Amino acid sequence: MIIDLTFLKQIAEVAAQQTLPRFRTVALVDNKYQTGFDPVTEADREAERAIRSLINATFPEHGILGEEFGGENLAQPNIWVIDPIDGTRAFISGLPVWGTLAGLTINGDAVAGVMSQPFTRELFMCDGDASWYEGPDGVRRLQTRKTTELAEATLFTTTPALFKGAQREVYDRIESTARLARYGTDCYAYAMLASGFVDLVIETGLHPYDIVALIPIIEKAGGVITTWDGGAAEKAGDIVAAATPELHAKALALLNQ
Amino acid sequence: MIIDLTFLKQIAEVAAQQTLPRFRTVALVDNKYQTGFDPVTEADREAERAIRSLINATFPEHGILGEEFGGENLAQPNIWVIDPIDGTRAFISGLPVWGTLAGLTINGDAVAGVMSQPFTRELFMCDGDASWYEGPDGVRRLQTRKTTELAEATLFTTTPALFKGAQREVYDRIESTARLARYGTDCYAYAMLASGFVDLVIETGLHPYDIVALIPIIEKAGGVITTWDGGAAEKAGDIVAAATPELHAKALALLNQ
Repeated sequence: MIIDLTFLKQIAEVAAQQTLPRFRTVALVDNKYQTGFDPVTEADREAERAIRSLINATFPEHGILGEEFGGENLAQPNIWVIDPIDGTRAFISGLPVWGTLAGLTINGDAVAGVMSQPFTRELFMCDGDASWYEGPDGVRRLQTRKTTELAEATLFTTTPALFKGAQREVYDRIESTARLARYGTDCYAYAMLASGFVDLVIETGLHPYDIVALIPIIEKAGGVITTWDGGAAEKAGDIVAAATPELHAKALALLNQ
Repeated sequence: MIIDLTFLKQIAEVAAQQTLPRFRTVALVDNKYQTGFDPVTEADREAERAIRSLINATFPEHGILGEEFGGENLAQPNIWVIDPIDGTRAFISGLPVWGTLAGLTINGDAVAGVMSQPFTRELFMCDGDASWYEGPDGVRRLQTRKTTELAEATLFTTTPALFKGAQREVYDRIESTARLARYGTDCYAYAMLASGFVDLVIETGLHPYDIVALIPIIEKAGGVITTWDGGAAEKAGDIVAAATPELHAKALALLNQ
């Protein structure tokens, strides 16, 4: 074990104290741009501040790279990569499929992390050895589904509109082969892949803070996650995550045709 | 008041007893088609049976039209229209954005209804006079947002791929004008519209059981919902729902250009 689950839950808790009271408050103002009141940005910043304080207090020697406030101590081997609210558009729209992400890299490898959805009270965590779910369904090990064929796969992506030119052609070919395709769930799609309900997630244009926390959660649940060219997912950019090595290989072959 | 909220909550409760224990069980089998175990169909059927029993016991003179078991007593003025699981693909994928729908029509007009999401413990209800939310955020009247301009609207649809030919061109024009577009939330999109977080929902190919329960919830929250040609939404088919009459008129004008 690299990081105690208790600490990952603490991260989720301090973030939830900042995000949850601001979730579904956008409607209270008719136009946040006119009033200057922007609960999403406030929630994003306050949650990242809270997570940074907790990490600094607990692991003062660790570095931090966050979406909102950039990097500190980045010369250290241990770096936490944070996205306080992944899925801002879901947050704005009232949908409970956004999440708070915090992942630990050691010398660039993502080794532990947490994805928290505080409205549904769900945690998806990796302590370095195994991946865990805690939520209304109970507590259990996360395990991906054993899907090996594209024709049997449930596929998620943010929206096909993000893929341009040749990327779009390749994506459309994969989608037309998949059993079911759904759009627009951000980190929740990767959490459902680690949980065994989704088989394939294909995305483009990701930042490290969008994906680092999810890498160990997926890998220790039995899944495979890389860039489209098969490189380390920590680089972010074009990402493909699959429930099994066989399915990942088939997707990769199509993506690189 | 036409229907007591207590009865709408009873509908949600008897349905949840059948749906929730079967939610997120699909992953327990590698291939439901091989084993013959299909928790979605089971949940759908058992939930509709439970809702029908409750209605028959409470209002024996009312008719019922359900997705799974068709119609009974349809010559009566009061007809309940039921979709035990709206958003089957969300249910299969583990996403908590499906819902149980039951709406009451009197002489063909939808006058009361409930949308229940039991995993998030949320209820969206209309008793005939007003629309209500009950859930983790508390209890409150539902009220749509005051958005009147397409350029400020958050737009939801199942997927643009459902629109063909001229419909697709019209839809794409509206989407390109909207501030934000999201896909694939079924009944949850209408619930968020009634709650003031989404401004516009545009869909095609709906059945009455997909929409009847949602009509009064949206209307008594201040929204407008019709077919694309401005007809009664109870007819289903092509549906447009908007947060305000002004926004609805602008969407309708574009849809009929």
